Amino acid sequence: MTGVPEIRAGDDLVELLGDAVAATAGGAAENDIVVVASKVVSKAEGRRATQDPTPGDESAALALVTGFDPGQVELILSESKAVLRAALGVLVVETKHGFVCANAGVDRSNTGEAGTALLLPEDADASAERIRQGLTARFGVGLAVLVSDTFGRPFRHGLVNVAVGVAGMGAVRDYRGQLDSEGRGLKGTELAVADELCSAAELVMNKLDRVPAAVIRGYPHEPAAGSGRALLRDPAHDYFR
Amino acid sequence: MTGVPEIRAGDDLVELLGDAVAATAGGAAENDIVVVASKVVSKAEGRRATQDPTPGDESAALALVTGFDPGQVELILSESKAVLRAALGVLVVETKHGFVCANAGVDRSNTGEAGTALLLPEDADASAERIRQGLTARFGVGLAVLVSDTFGRPFRHGLVNVAVGVAGMGAVRDYRGQLDSEGRGLKGTELAVADELCSAAELVMNKLDRVPAAVIRGYPHEPAAGSGRALLRDPAHDYFR
Repeated sequence: MTGVPEIRAGDDLVELLGDAVAATAGGAAENDIVVVASKVVSKAEGRRATQDPTPGDESAALALVTGFDPGQVELILSESKAVLRAALGVLVVETKHGFVCANAGVDRSNTGEAGTALLLPEDADASAERIRQGLTARFGVGLAVLVSDTFGRPFRHGLVNVAVGVAGMGAVRDYRGQLDSEGRGLKGTELAVADELCSAAELVMNKLDRVPAAVIRGYPHEPAAGSGRALLRDPAHDYFR
Repeated sequence: MTGVPEIRAGDDLVELLGDAVAATAGGAAENDIVVVASKVVSKAEGRRATQDPTPGDESAALALVTGFDPGQVELILSESKAVLRAALGVLVVETKHGFVCANAGVDRSNTGEAGTALLLPEDADASAERIRQGLTARFGVGLAVLVSDTFGRPFRHGLVNVAVGVAGMGAVRDYRGQLDSEGRGLKGTELAVADELCSAAELVMNKLDRVPAAVIRGYPHEPAAGSGRALLRDPAHDYFR
């Protein structure tokens, strides 16, 4: 969708997204999935740091390791509960929400206000649910909302979009207990469909074109409350921390 | 595409895929991206182990750790160059090709022959290029081909589809050196679009529906030779091995 204007704190994101859905897709259809970039959610929610905090000892030490500005490191740590890896140009943390990503998702590009930084939404599931309720009320159809962000990953080069907030659908599609076409039980086949849907949406939500939302129509999903937390691996079953 | 029959070793995969493209999409259009499940590529190429090899000492030890059958572990190791993690129910390796994944991609479900295992294509880039050349010759249009497989990942729960073979397009879209809308240089923004395209295709290539291929139309990409190797993170910049 290209009709979404530059978002500012306090803007009614539901109304602006709804206008864009109405303009480009002729309104929402039953079971549509609306994917919204976390950046615009953060802008609307005022999740912006206008200046970097005073760095403490840990930030000063990590700034030496990473080559980052100490105040910027302090801002990252203020959004984090653990540092997983630090190296030159690299600071991978677990955020307060439980996401493992670079720089706690603190975003300094295309912020809309030079010199400031955008933080991840405080609770992206709640953000997704607010948008879902608003769009459902406006268009009178059931739909799902995903809040997406761009993450790196171990082993594989390049970034992909994943879901940080989910409302109105299950984040994971579970094939366990079903039989394959030879009658053999499938195991370990839980597909992270919310992440795949966000990756699909990224292909039309080009970073430079400023298209902060997309509508996915025709993907069959069961209505469910949904949560991005279902996409967080249990640390006890995470062998790469 | 639902018109692809059960594939057997020696089958002309290009012809069968071409028939399915012709039946469901009315033929290929310029710049179409054809995504094919690695499983059918492996079947057509005869990448099948009909019995497990005799386990050596390392496999016997890893079988105790993982709870897997020792012969099945030996088969996994025969496809691997390094073991990254072993735990109960978990064996993450680096394959001969450089992919980091569970069980070296050895696949025992929906193999088409009970009691056998399918191995990843020997060279999935070459497989993709053969299919690309064949479909280009048949339909007279330029297109790209991705060979996809289903991988787990650290930190995040659930599996996603990624590209193991790429032909006809760049696997990574590179925004580095471009400026954001505030004139600030974007850094670190290389998007793994081939992975995102495979994730998008997975949403219609349901594991149980046996839809082993999909056509993505309308995604703007620059023709390029392309390689799935571009999606392998340099181990020197991988902080989670």
